[in-house]
Amino acid sequence: LSPPGVRPLCRWPLAWGRAARQPPGLPLTPCRAFSNNKILVELDESSGVAMMKFKSPPVNSLSLDFLTEFCISLEKLENDRACRGVIFASAVPKIFSSGLDITEMYGKSMEHYAEFWRAVQEMWLRLYGSNMVTVAAVNGSSPAGGCLVALSCDYRIMVENPKFSIGLNEAQLGIVAPFWFKDTFVNVVGHRIAERSLQLGSLYPAPEALKFGLVDELVPEEKLQEKAMAVMAQWLALPDHARQLTKSMMRKAVLDRLVAHREEDIQNFISFISKESIQKSLRMYMEMLKKKKS
Amino acid sequence: LSPPGVRPLCRWPLAWGRAARQPPGLPLTPCRAFSNNKILVELDESSGVAMMKFKSPPVNSLSLDFLTEFCISLEKLENDRACRGVIFASAVPKIFSSGLDITEMYGKSMEHYAEFWRAVQEMWLRLYGSNMVTVAAVNGSSPAGGCLVALSCDYRIMVENPKFSIGLNEAQLGIVAPFWFKDTFVNVVGHRIAERSLQLGSLYPAPEALKFGLVDELVPEEKLQEKAMAVMAQWLALPDHARQLTKSMMRKAVLDRLVAHREEDIQNFISFISKESIQKSLRMYMEMLKKKKS
Amino acid sequence: LSPPGVRPLCRWPLAWGRAARQPPGLPLTPCRAFSNNKILVELDESSGVAMMKFKSPPVNSLSLDFLTEFCISLEKLENDRACRGVIFASAVPKIFSSGLDITEMYGKSMEHYAEFWRAVQEMWLRLYGSNMVTVAAVNGSSPAGGCLVALSCDYRIMVENPKFSIGLNEAQLGIVAPFWFKDTFVNVVGHRIAERSLQLGSLYPAPEALKFGLVDELVPEEKLQEKAMAVMAQWLALPDHARQLTKSMMRKAVLDRLVAHREEDIQNFISFISKESIQKSLRMYMEMLKKKKS
Repeated sequence: LSPPGVRPLCRWPLAWGRAARQPPGLPLTPCRAFSNNKILVELDESSGVAMMKFKSPPVNSLSLDFLTEFCISLEKLENDRACRGVIFASAVPKIFSSGLDITEMYGKSMEHYAEFWRAVQEMWLRLYGSNMVTVAAVNGSSPAGGCLVALSCDYRIMVENPKFSIGLNEAQLGIVAPFWFKDTFVNVVGHRIAERSLQLGSLYPAPEALKFGLVDELVPEEKLQEKAMAVMAQWLALPDHARQLTKSMMRKAVLDRLVAHREEDIQNFISFISKESIQKSLRMYMEMLKKKKS
Repeated sequence: LSPPGVRPLCRWPLAWGRAARQPPGLPLTPCRAFSNNKILVELDESSGVAMMKFKSPPVNSLSLDFLTEFCISLEKLENDRACRGVIFASAVPKIFSSGLDITEMYGKSMEHYAEFWRAVQEMWLRLYGSNMVTVAAVNGSSPAGGCLVALSCDYRIMVENPKFSIGLNEAQLGIVAPFWFKDTFVNVVGHRIAERSLQLGSLYPAPEALKFGLVDELVPEEKLQEKAMAVMAQWLALPDHARQLTKSMMRKAVLDRLVAHREEDIQNFISFISKESIQKSLRMYMEMLKKKKS
Repeated sequence: LSPPGVRPLCRWPLAWGRAARQPPGLPLTPCRAFSNNKILVELDESSGVAMMKFKSPPVNSLSLDFLTEFCISLEKLENDRACRGVIFASAVPKIFSSGLDITEMYGKSMEHYAEFWRAVQEMWLRLYGSNMVTVAAVNGSSPAGGCLVALSCDYRIMVENPKFSIGLNEAQLGIVAPFWFKDTFVNVVGHRIAERSLQLGSLYPAPEALKFGLVDELVPEEKLQEKAMAVMAQWLALPDHARQLTKSMMRKAVLDRLVAHREEDIQNFISFISKESIQKSLRMYMEMLKKKKS
């Protein structure tokens, strides 16, 4: 079964060497790990479960480099018969991912905007269309694109800390979530909640997010790993083939829509983001963030 | 940004004089008001918020005259740069709006039915597709078309009085809500609730309506105005452009559907409403209402 | 009003004699009953309500014979002006229906698979598109195709016994619910619950099923009949014509989708079910069931 609607659109090589191989003669540690600059991946062959940890401080923003590594890592696992499921979490305290890297969208060339947006699309197509079981272990705040990563998984567990919030807050920055962010959101929370939340750019503290199903459950931080593994075991108890076909049936319409309108969506993004008024909004937002820091 | 899917279909003049102008030299009262026969409009320029009050006793029924005034008033505000949001409420005690005026649908000519139905469509296209923030302050019962007005807004606050009810109860009169009433309803409460409620023609007391999201919150009557202003302020805190594009993205599919099938929908209405059996149902309903009154 | 999207696809004769007729001269017992091998039908002419009781022990599985009887019985009632609503229940203790009969899907000819699948489709097209009010009185467990029968009704009442469970658990057998099972499910519980439940093949104990609207209410077993009659009376209080048109409006898109892709869906079923791996899964499942029994 190929990922639904995901044609060979990828600009990265489809094959690469293992960054790390299982040392021979150590059957008691069946763990295989490979690391790049921004994402750490550990595959436990006995369970068939990989852990992908975002370690791109300070806030795991989805830069072009991050997205490229994300897609490569995900494809690596997708093609690895030993891997049946992936858990996503952050290695940076208090933040899961802050979403799309604003610096990639400010003061750059049209070509850069196009390349960046294609990478954002690719990330979503691969994650939302993954054949593996995908569980988001949301151990920190997760606005905008960070929320999209979580929404694209099969299941979302969040740390119950009310200081951690999640949501598609693009409107607060004066920008608009693209239609496939919206489609993914509607598929999780329904039309009404999506409409209101997207217009207000709402960020929800974890307990609020649970109430309307933006996340599936809350756990204390120290139980997150254990809970994610338990959920994964529950999903992996099902035969892969039936589960994958079912997942594809549920998500195909929405995936196909982006595949059909991909170039148009890139052009829309470029013409929107390069507007003077939008560039100004982004600059103000970045300045506000800088002041907040200092 | 033009209202999504709303072509220049309007039979009313697109420009008109102000019914009332701000008297010079009174900066402390930045309120501008214009009134017609059936709707009172007050625009507070300092906040950018207009109040539209339905004052067509006894029950604010949506007659052809009412709908015409509604559309003119709404377009006036839509084109007024000083206006960013509208609050809708009733100036008639206990009733928000009783919905479509049955007398417009009984014993009239085909031409009249066509003109009336076009006005109903126009009202919905303008309201559901409005670029302004729209808040329904539902201070009374709101059946059928009255419920549609509320459903077409961005947010619904209702007086917590359980004697006030709301719902699309067309089936109880032996008639069928058109597909775009249904689409609007499904977008708010989901498919299942819509299916059951439309078949049963259910009217829900305010506390019931809150439970499944037909209204967003309940307040005591004396707090309604204050709450509506607070909600409006929250929505107006977002940049207009991003909010408008987002709203359009959420509602475009459903608006486009009526625009594409508008004439067909008018023909359907005419042939349905002019059936002898339907005319008989309406007559019996009107007689029942008269008896109730006396 | 003809059933929406249901063309004359039926392989059964459209007319047949009554299996039982009202004996003359007994006006106090207006009940008319006809029985076949697997389904008992009683029509109460005074109320216009028929009861269809599944009596195909041990588990009311949806065999080709059962489905054929089901469709004939349903059409008989559909064409009977005396009948306005049907209540479905089981005459077998503890089980409503166990769903599609696995023996029809194992070790048979392509022709048999095609005939069986066409009968499953026909059952759903007739039930989901019925002009009558349909109430499921779920008095036992109701997995897979049994759940579909309940989902296709207008209203679902379940016995509150937590030992009775309901859900589309196809994935647990290594098979995939077809798209129209999924569409029906999404229309009742929404996209998110459907996505998760279908992938996990979840069966929900009655109290869980109530929580997210998979069933509409729970009652003690001894109150089930009375409650089903009360619900039926509520639905029958509406004018048939308006209710039927409304129901058709809500369900037409999903019904039309199967009608448009019916032969394709049959071919998909045949090629899927005749796969060696799927046949093996089914054999293992049947062996497990046998062991459980002994």
